[in-house]
Amino acid sequence: MRCTAQEVCDKLVNEDSILSSQGGIVFTFGGVGITVRQKDVVGNIMQEWVRGWLERKDIDFELSQNTQMPPDFYLNPDNKQENLLEVKAFDNERGPGFDIADFRMFASEVIEKPYMLEADYLVFGYKMTAGVVTVKNLWLKKVWQITCSSANWPMKLQVKESVVHKIRPGVFYSGRAKFKSFECLEDFLSALEESIYQNRDTRELSQQWKNRFLASYYAHYGVRLNIPRWSEIAERYRAQGQ
Amino acid sequence: MRCTAQEVCDKLVNEDSILSSQGGIVFTFGGVGITVRQKDVVGNIMQEWVRGWLERKDIDFELSQNTQMPPDFYLNPDNKQENLLEVKAFDNERGPGFDIADFRMFASEVIEKPYMLEADYLVFGYKMTAGVVTVKNLWLKKVWQITCSSANWPMKLQVKESVVHKIRPGVFYSGRAKFKSFECLEDFLSALEESIYQNRDTRELSQQWKNRFLASYYAHYGVRLNIPRWSEIAERYRAQGQ
Repeated sequence: MRCTAQEVCDKLVNEDSILSSQGGIVFTFGGVGITVRQKDVVGNIMQEWVRGWLERKDIDFELSQNTQMPPDFYLNPDNKQENLLEVKAFDNERGPGFDIADFRMFASEVIEKPYMLEADYLVFGYKMTAGVVTVKNLWLKKVWQITCSSANWPMKLQVKESVVHKIRPGVFYSGRAKFKSFECLEDFLSALEESIYQNRDTRELSQQWKNRFLASYYAHYGVRLNIPRWSEIAERYRAQGQ
Repeated sequence: MRCTAQEVCDKLVNEDSILSSQGGIVFTFGGVGITVRQKDVVGNIMQEWVRGWLERKDIDFELSQNTQMPPDFYLNPDNKQENLLEVKAFDNERGPGFDIADFRMFASEVIEKPYMLEADYLVFGYKMTAGVVTVKNLWLKKVWQITCSSANWPMKLQVKESVVHKIRPGVFYSGRAKFKSFECLEDFLSALEESIYQNRDTRELSQQWKNRFLASYYAHYGVRLNIPRWSEIAERYRAQGQ
């Protein structure tokens, strides 16, 4: 059976009522079974659970080989340029702590594979209390809907000792988030381009990045995107209430 | 029932035959159960399994509150200065990848709690194949038996951007390891002291560290340790076959 990401999300919520389900992780060894209570383990295995659920539901998919980059699942194994599904999970009481993608790899890959930008992110907000796992929220989002700006970079990034590593999510579901999510693909791309320029490790990419990306996007979708300069829109994405 | 760490280890191997047992991790949610195949999850939950096993065996213990520092278990809840048990696990096909302790915290704590140095490390060398967990090796070691020197530091440390973070284990079970494990507590302490001096973040500690530690150790055990200078013994711990 073929499903879109939206249909997957709807089935999880409506058919299988996962927002009112309970679960748990049991490790059995040498005749002793224990319920795992470590919260971060859940985040790591939700993607494996979705795989099991897709199989149970007889929904077609193919796994991606590259675990560093989206997507996790190709929902249309005959066409790996559409219906891409990425699974993320975070502790709903703590806020999104997952990585979106390696920044440098993402900057290069969107030129080669502009359709990656249309991947759907199925995001689980889980809770674990005394070993009982529940899912408090389930979202289906595009990448620009879960990313935002930050104090020192146009895009929220993980930066260690001045080296940019990962693109990180914002608190995309809260109206009181310090930084609001991007409103559209073009604004996300604007922040991405400015970050590519600001980051010394990708600066050599930045001169032709926009031209190359726009040509590639046009070749794939037949649409000429208009990416604003970051300076034109930065004001809209500054920290709120500051 | 009271047990020493050695008795715990013997029971695991001889009574419960864990070296020939099989196990697995199952995550059940929304009516779908999956067998977890991620190897690093095992390392994170082995300590939880030992807790369950101790309970099943009716062996007394108390959990430590500080998860950053050894031990995990006090096997004598009436005396938290002896019979300390720390559990570690690593993928037997890849080699030890766990942290021993935060370097700075360890350097300070051994002065206050010299008995920490006598904690027993119960180390599981596990294997996970297609979701089936087996334990290939089980060791019971002292900290100096699983640590070693390294190319740039007297002690093997995790260093990121010139900042020392963790004390790391050597390939302690292999005669062909590049760096052999320390032969005795005193040699471990020698490497520790020289590392405290070499590391800019702990240098202010280093002038009085040895005096303070020796006084504390004597107060606790009534034994005057003789810690050699690192320069006197470094030769014995250099990389082998170089």
